[in-house]
Amino acid sequence: MKPLGPIPAGFEPIDGELSIGGRTVGAWVEEAGGTPLFLYSHDLIRRRVDLLRRTMPDRLRIHYAIKANSYRPILELMRALVDGFDIASAGELRMALEAGQNPALISFAGPGKRDEELELAIRHGVTLNLESEGEAHRALDIAEKLGATPRLAIRVNPSFELRGSGMKMGGGAKPFGIDQDRVAQLARSLIATGAEWRGLHIFTGSQALDASAIIETQANVLGLAARLTGEIGSPLPHLNMGGGFGIPYFHGDQPLDVDVVGGALAARIASLPAELSNTELAIELGRYLVGEAGVYLARIVDRKESHGQVFLVTDGGLHHQLAASGNFGTVVRRNYPAAIATRFDAEPVEEANIVGCLCTPLDRLADQALVPRAEVGDLVAIFCAGAYGASASPFTFLGQGPAHEKLV
Amino acid sequence: MKPLGPIPAGFEPIDGELSIGGRTVGAWVEEAGGTPLFLYSHDLIRRRVDLLRRTMPDRLRIHYAIKANSYRPILELMRALVDGFDIASAGELRMALEAGQNPALISFAGPGKRDEELELAIRHGVTLNLESEGEAHRALDIAEKLGATPRLAIRVNPSFELRGSGMKMGGGAKPFGIDQDRVAQLARSLIATGAEWRGLHIFTGSQALDASAIIETQANVLGLAARLTGEIGSPLPHLNMGGGFGIPYFHGDQPLDVDVVGGALAARIASLPAELSNTELAIELGRYLVGEAGVYLARIVDRKESHGQVFLVTDGGLHHQLAASGNFGTVVRRNYPAAIATRFDAEPVEEANIVGCLCTPLDRLADQALVPRAEVGDLVAIFCAGAYGASASPFTFLGQGPAHEKLV
Repeated sequence: MKPLGPIPAGFEPIDGELSIGGRTVGAWVEEAGGTPLFLYSHDLIRRRVDLLRRTMPDRLRIHYAIKANSYRPILELMRALVDGFDIASAGELRMALEAGQNPALISFAGPGKRDEELELAIRHGVTLNLESEGEAHRALDIAEKLGATPRLAIRVNPSFELRGSGMKMGGGAKPFGIDQDRVAQLARSLIATGAEWRGLHIFTGSQALDASAIIETQANVLGLAARLTGEIGSPLPHLNMGGGFGIPYFHGDQPLDVDVVGGALAARIASLPAELSNTELAIELGRYLVGEAGVYLARIVDRKESHGQVFLVTDGGLHHQLAASGNFGTVVRRNYPAAIATRFDAEPVEEANIVGCLCTPLDRLADQALVPRAEVGDLVAIFCAGAYGASASPFTFLGQGPAHEKLV
Repeated sequence: MKPLGPIPAGFEPIDGELSIGGRTVGAWVEEAGGTPLFLYSHDLIRRRVDLLRRTMPDRLRIHYAIKANSYRPILELMRALVDGFDIASAGELRMALEAGQNPALISFAGPGKRDEELELAIRHGVTLNLESEGEAHRALDIAEKLGATPRLAIRVNPSFELRGSGMKMGGGAKPFGIDQDRVAQLARSLIATGAEWRGLHIFTGSQALDASAIIETQANVLGLAARLTGEIGSPLPHLNMGGGFGIPYFHGDQPLDVDVVGGALAARIASLPAELSNTELAIELGRYLVGEAGVYLARIVDRKESHGQVFLVTDGGLHHQLAASGNFGTVVRRNYPAAIATRFDAEPVEEANIVGCLCTPLDRLADQALVPRAEVGDLVAIFCAGAYGASASPFTFLGQGPAHEKLV
């Protein structure tokens, strides 16, 4: 038996079946036209943003990193809930604009921006988080050709990292940003060109659950930003402090204590160094805002036994849930939270392997999980499917197609 | 420094630049409309099939598992070169039919076939490789409703595996096929219904480079097929012996010795047990046929240094090359074969990290590789990109899109 991850709060049964937004998942599947289906809860996303508004200092702006989930209705919802979008490509810029986002509230980071992408961003007045001196020169050349004033920030590769983060984006040699000791010189030269100086982006890592690690990193980020601002010699309009707020995926994971993080940040903001006294401060979150608000539903198409083990074969799989299958950035596969959605309050009675429909041993959704007895036709739910699910999976693999998606 | 994998034979420079089909990759990129681009060589695929025709016994049929690469022009080419297609979904069935393949030469394996998929296959007279008793009953019910005679084979979960294979698909509890000790009973019941009995599918694993392991497994497969045929008590029309032929991806990998495999198989076929004397024998290959015939090309958009390391940032990445990035079925990331395509015969002079354009530390194409000095505008080639590249990668991730593809 291998444990399942913890099911996020907010998912309750109706007549024994998993429900979202006051209706059973079976009803939503019918309305959406079938399985597999990603269901996202409007209410859970709103509650998550409310939690941050309550726990974080008032001064802190909350940005949404749309890479986590760029489904159009979610972008429209987030536009109303948060203070800005962070994007990573021209494709994401188009999505953000189509969702009605104000370009002045968009910033664009990404180590491999093409000239066409820089041009599109500059035309729209989007802030560019510059990742290198070379990219800075390309952006200035393009802006000059367009006769536009580019809005420029610098992404800093800090010499510290976010302890315990799932993805480290700072500390040592990285393709992201500009090493901190070269930032001031570049910033001064940008400001000298007459570009609009937007500030700094310091992103150290993601998916951390340890409040003390985040507190320590935020202190380091503020300290570095103050020091760099002094070296630059111009006011810092905006500081993107990065994100890093994780969500519990696996057995034993404890939710991040955002009360503690918010309290520590409030104390630090109350005694900010003079360099940052008028700086707009923002955090950039993706997974934390939407990850736990989504569930992936697939239908069991076969129940079989092999060498004494039960296999529940679904019509879903890693082509929609690459990370849950254990094939995206994980070394040792562990089970995400999962359940037999149509028997949500039934007692677990057997050990079963929940797999996808793909003809590859990689296509596992839950290994040796203790679940109620399930039959062909039952729905399986994989939780924590709101971020890096649909858009981060190879949906055309083996001739499959995209899953349905629905915000309810 | 970390070594690169071995560049497959058949890639030569023209005027110092990597070429395919008599033209430089730069010329092909221009014709295709830009980067990133998957280029597949008609000639290399043809030579690979020729090699198998020369080395394998005449009696052995060669099937193409289209999951490896289902790009339409490749399907059209393979239809002319091989003896049948193996598919894994209704989507792949449609692709095979659109490429002009005869449905009688198609077999369909996959543990999670939906009713609609079974129906489509039965309507077209495609052979179903049944994966469970439950699927067998569903197929029979659907055939009866359609008034059609289904063409049925059984996929066997053998009690042995392919030693040293990258993906094990036999030996122990598996979601694939029916445990070997239950096969005869199911086969007899299928035959009793009047269904067309097509035989057995025994797939033990993939991506093996050790000839002796494949020889041993083929012997086991033939032995098991003969024994099951005796138990079933009806002639075996067809035996899909599986695949397993690997290609060298990593430093130190040696190519599979197909001469030795073919010789051993010929000897065994010369003294086949009576049960198999009239059986059509086939192997099913995907990666081995097309993997080394493809190259992925991306353009360097930035050259930067961080903490003394060089980063060559390209406009490609894991959204097209998930496996090469080390995020698909691998525990420890190793470098695929890679080169600076526009400086293909230049001396390597520096250690560089070749990364993709995505804003994630997972997006690595070659770590600490010794390469010629490359600049913005140069093309990078990742080899072994003909299989499980375009179709097995999350191309919409971070707002990106599909790569160009071209068969030349």
